[in-house]
Amino acid sequence: MQNFVIRTHYCGELSRHDIGTRVIVYGWVHKMRDLGGILFSHVRDVSGICQVVFNPGVSKAVHEAASALRSEYVVKIEGSVRERPEGNDNPLLTTGDVEVVADSVEVLNSAQTPPFSISEDSKVSEHARFEFRYLDLRRPAMQEKILFRSKVISAMRRYLEDHRFHELETPILTRSTPEGARDFLVPSRMTPGHFYALPQSPQLFKQIFMVAGFDRYFQICRCFRDEDLRADRQPEFTQLDMELSFTPPKELFRIVNGLMSYLAQSVVPLMSVPESIPVMTYRDAMERFGSDKPDLRFAMELRDVTEVVEGTEYGIFRDVVAGGGRVKALAVPGAGASFSRKEIDDVGERAKQLGAKGLGWARRDDKKYNTPLLKLLGEATLDRIYEKAGAGKDDLVLLMADKWKPAATVLGTLRLELGRKLGLIPEGLFALTWVTEFPWLEWSEEDKRPVACHHPFTKPMMEDLERFKETPLEIRAQAYDLVLNGTEIGGGSVRIHQPDLQEKMFEYLQIPKEEAREKFGFLIDAFKYGAPPHCGIALGVDRLVTLFLGESSIREVIPFPKTQRGVCLMTGAPGTVSERQLREVSLKTRVE
Amino acid sequence: MQNFVIRTHYCGELSRHDIGTRVIVYGWVHKMRDLGGILFSHVRDVSGICQVVFNPGVSKAVHEAASALRSEYVVKIEGSVRERPEGNDNPLLTTGDVEVVADSVEVLNSAQTPPFSISEDSKVSEHARFEFRYLDLRRPAMQEKILFRSKVISAMRRYLEDHRFHELETPILTRSTPEGARDFLVPSRMTPGHFYALPQSPQLFKQIFMVAGFDRYFQICRCFRDEDLRADRQPEFTQLDMELSFTPPKELFRIVNGLMSYLAQSVVPLMSVPESIPVMTYRDAMERFGSDKPDLRFAMELRDVTEVVEGTEYGIFRDVVAGGGRVKALAVPGAGASFSRKEIDDVGERAKQLGAKGLGWARRDDKKYNTPLLKLLGEATLDRIYEKAGAGKDDLVLLMADKWKPAATVLGTLRLELGRKLGLIPEGLFALTWVTEFPWLEWSEEDKRPVACHHPFTKPMMEDLERFKETPLEIRAQAYDLVLNGTEIGGGSVRIHQPDLQEKMFEYLQIPKEEAREKFGFLIDAFKYGAPPHCGIALGVDRLVTLFLGESSIREVIPFPKTQRGVCLMTGAPGTVSERQLREVSLKTRVE
Repeated sequence: MQNFVIRTHYCGELSRHDIGTRVIVYGWVHKMRDLGGILFSHVRDVSGICQVVFNPGVSKAVHEAASALRSEYVVKIEGSVRERPEGNDNPLLTTGDVEVVADSVEVLNSAQTPPFSISEDSKVSEHARFEFRYLDLRRPAMQEKILFRSKVISAMRRYLEDHRFHELETPILTRSTPEGARDFLVPSRMTPGHFYALPQSPQLFKQIFMVAGFDRYFQICRCFRDEDLRADRQPEFTQLDMELSFTPPKELFRIVNGLMSYLAQSVVPLMSVPESIPVMTYRDAMERFGSDKPDLRFAMELRDVTEVVEGTEYGIFRDVVAGGGRVKALAVPGAGASFSRKEIDDVGERAKQLGAKGLGWARRDDKKYNTPLLKLLGEATLDRIYEKAGAGKDDLVLLMADKWKPAATVLGTLRLELGRKLGLIPEGLFALTWVTEFPWLEWSEEDKRPVACHHPFTKPMMEDLERFKETPLEIRAQAYDLVLNGTEIGGGSVRIHQPDLQEKMFEYLQIPKEEAREKFGFLIDAFKYGAPPHCGIALGVDRLVTLFLGESSIREVIPFPKTQRGVCLMTGAPGTVSERQLREVSLKTRVE
Repeated sequence: MQNFVIRTHYCGELSRHDIGTRVIVYGWVHKMRDLGGILFSHVRDVSGICQVVFNPGVSKAVHEAASALRSEYVVKIEGSVRERPEGNDNPLLTTGDVEVVADSVEVLNSAQTPPFSISEDSKVSEHARFEFRYLDLRRPAMQEKILFRSKVISAMRRYLEDHRFHELETPILTRSTPEGARDFLVPSRMTPGHFYALPQSPQLFKQIFMVAGFDRYFQICRCFRDEDLRADRQPEFTQLDMELSFTPPKELFRIVNGLMSYLAQSVVPLMSVPESIPVMTYRDAMERFGSDKPDLRFAMELRDVTEVVEGTEYGIFRDVVAGGGRVKALAVPGAGASFSRKEIDDVGERAKQLGAKGLGWARRDDKKYNTPLLKLLGEATLDRIYEKAGAGKDDLVLLMADKWKPAATVLGTLRLELGRKLGLIPEGLFALTWVTEFPWLEWSEEDKRPVACHHPFTKPMMEDLERFKETPLEIRAQAYDLVLNGTEIGGGSVRIHQPDLQEKMFEYLQIPKEEAREKFGFLIDAFKYGAPPHCGIALGVDRLVTLFLGESSIREVIPFPKTQRGVCLMTGAPGTVSERQLREVSLKTRVE
């Protein structure tokens, strides 16, 4: 069988320690230069790059062989390591103070000229990068990202195994459960007309593991959702899935907090994680930041000025307040002084796009208010609004009157956009927060019935449940999200573990008894044989790695991503299949 | 949110060190006994079982509450640990010298009477075990197996990460490649009439990782094959997939050898792994053991006696030898003395079932041969056959004349079956071997063309390739299997990395150019941009764990297995889907 000599060193690991050593390295020709008849080659492998010198004075034959080398040729180099001549150090390479003087070179494979440069971070279209992913992944920056991802996942495993978790596998071929997003289907050949579904998450199986007594489960697992791919989604994604029995959520918070600290220590040195990640309720997050995934890298909190304007004559505010709505204020630092009138009008336009009927604003020149609201509210009220909003003299104050949620949401979006525009969001900062007590149910206009905000296995706050008849949508769930820099990176809940409450939940959701039985019967049955109290969480690995790297798309950290149309440009998946294959699974296409 | 006290101890970890300590434990009531008015409960969690005492003398209320406990109730117990009274130790429990005197008990969930006992290894049908898998998995023996599996996988990862491997993810939604078994298909909604396929292995992607320069890849990954499920297959299975660049296979062997040693040290204490696992060629394995996956736990080697009988007058032997066939012998230890004539005839019958035209046999009483062959071959020839076969006076000698391969295969199967019958295969022994130099191509009667024995990316022995025109089926591949106790637990090969050789391979296999282009074009393209020499292997995790445990079925080590019809009896997968779901993926069923 193939019998070649094992390398003695990786290219990127040569250093002064190796001076005088004979080495054998393998790799790709990164670039070639001819300087006065001496050839210099950068040879690249997974570890990095080293310089190789082909000097006709050392070996005429080797120099000649080297002159045939082109970019991306695969080579085996033998030679000796020496210190680079004075002044020739390359501080950009970790191996920049040494070089290999080659006395043997062997071409293991040649290479066509690649469609884009491997050696530089040249601008290449995403289409080309996906089609030639094997070349795109060869670029050192891409390799680093993919290897970083691998290290993050490895660290997650290490931490959880050190905390009595066991990684347990759940099936990929499972059954379709219609609560949630659309399933990918897999036709069964042996049971014609029946289908497996790919899991949207191992939710039911991990709860079954708890019923089976496994106590602490985790899994780095692939999940699938056949959704229209918005900006940054993939049809398959990786999640860190966890579930624990006999454990209060505050203990789960402590464990996840520890996990994030461990990741910071071991693989994300720029991140600092507080000993205790802040916890805020959903209601608080909405009131203060206008978002259920607040970005805490900067302040700019929303304030409620309803009571300040309660008595006002100004019709819009008065009517909103009388109708149970709120008036919320946002102070935009410095924008009062710096924004042109057009920029202020643009903010108002943006608010309308976001669904606002209107947006009030105020600013001050010297000591005089400069706002249409001056006439309507008067100076004293504006003083109090400024005070309440924590606005300084140069700030722009935005005011929004509506039901509490749209009022908060619109200002929350403006907060983010203006924060970005004004450069208030520091780069390289990692701000984590827990958001808790999410609503349990929400009204689905599409289905004309309440649906679970999280999923139908989430436990409500039991003290709220009494109010089910009157205000079902105000029941809080024992559900929580972990948020990093304004992105939800994980979500979980305390689960229902009592069979009767679970059945009641399906009733609340108006899922017909037979359907609930058909889809979830085994879970309810399982609960009848002694289910422990349990809770869990799932963290999005793609998202997390993307944020850790400061990248803007998960496609940068997935080796083989698909386009927004779900296509793999490298392999051409999805492809056509033969009539025989369709017949075997008892299917016909509707496509002409 | 749910706010209960964190446990102080796991049940199975209480020991003499804890005597006098107040503890809080959670778990399931494993069993209850009433001894003279005092209640004793075994409480079970993931770690094991402890005894809890409810003494009306300690608390009448608690004793009363405890009297309502039934098997599998979920409880929280508070109390103090004490030494068990003299003579009450239970050596069967790790916690058997202590007990918890309860002063508080809380029922967290009640339980119906389970359909089979959790506490004993009672005989239960596999159907019931699969349907109530959450109860089956609750049985301590099952939990141990599943947790053992988790530990094996974790150890694999640790070892490989310590050897410069990175775990890298490959897609589950990929494209159908028809070389190999049948694919599971996933209809695409966004590209009507097109399908993803679930991967039979990440073969192409891991080779692409090598082309992309990742150097050492591994992945614990799920693979899928839509085959008729024979005895012990599952539609989805887990494999340890590896690939290395710039590495000769002997180095890969060393790494896998090291991995097996590491598993032995860290999780399979009963296994001993030699410093160098024996290597034999396919041809040797067939000649000596009549199998390409020889069970080396016992000797009983096949011998070739062709030259002994070459000159014989006996027609059958003479004709087979003249036709280029072989006569192979197997000495069955002691069976000459111990087998009845009927037992010998049964062996002959079995050989016929296996495809033999006939089976010769010989035994000796005292010094006289007792065999129909005596007349045909004569005593001197039988003496030489006995000598050559290494047969002792009490042994039964079996003789088989045919082409070398069927002659070897039939005797190889008899060797295994008789070895088992005679108790020659020691339990608890682990015998590993490499088998190398498999054939490259084999003739497919179905397709009327040569197909790849391993897969179409395997490199041939280059010195054999010259003989392609004359004897294509005699070309050896640079392919290897790892065999444990007569079961193939892994297979791999050196891959083709030259685009021209890969295209030639598709020609040899008579795959039309357009089809090869359509299915594998991206791989050939990738090779054109500088592919490194690479090789790899995949180990079957389910199989390996099963063998480590001495179990007979992979269903024992998979948390949620499917039946031979591909059905999950717990969830009911595969299930029906709605007309809307079918319409969304542009499909109709052919089922009436």
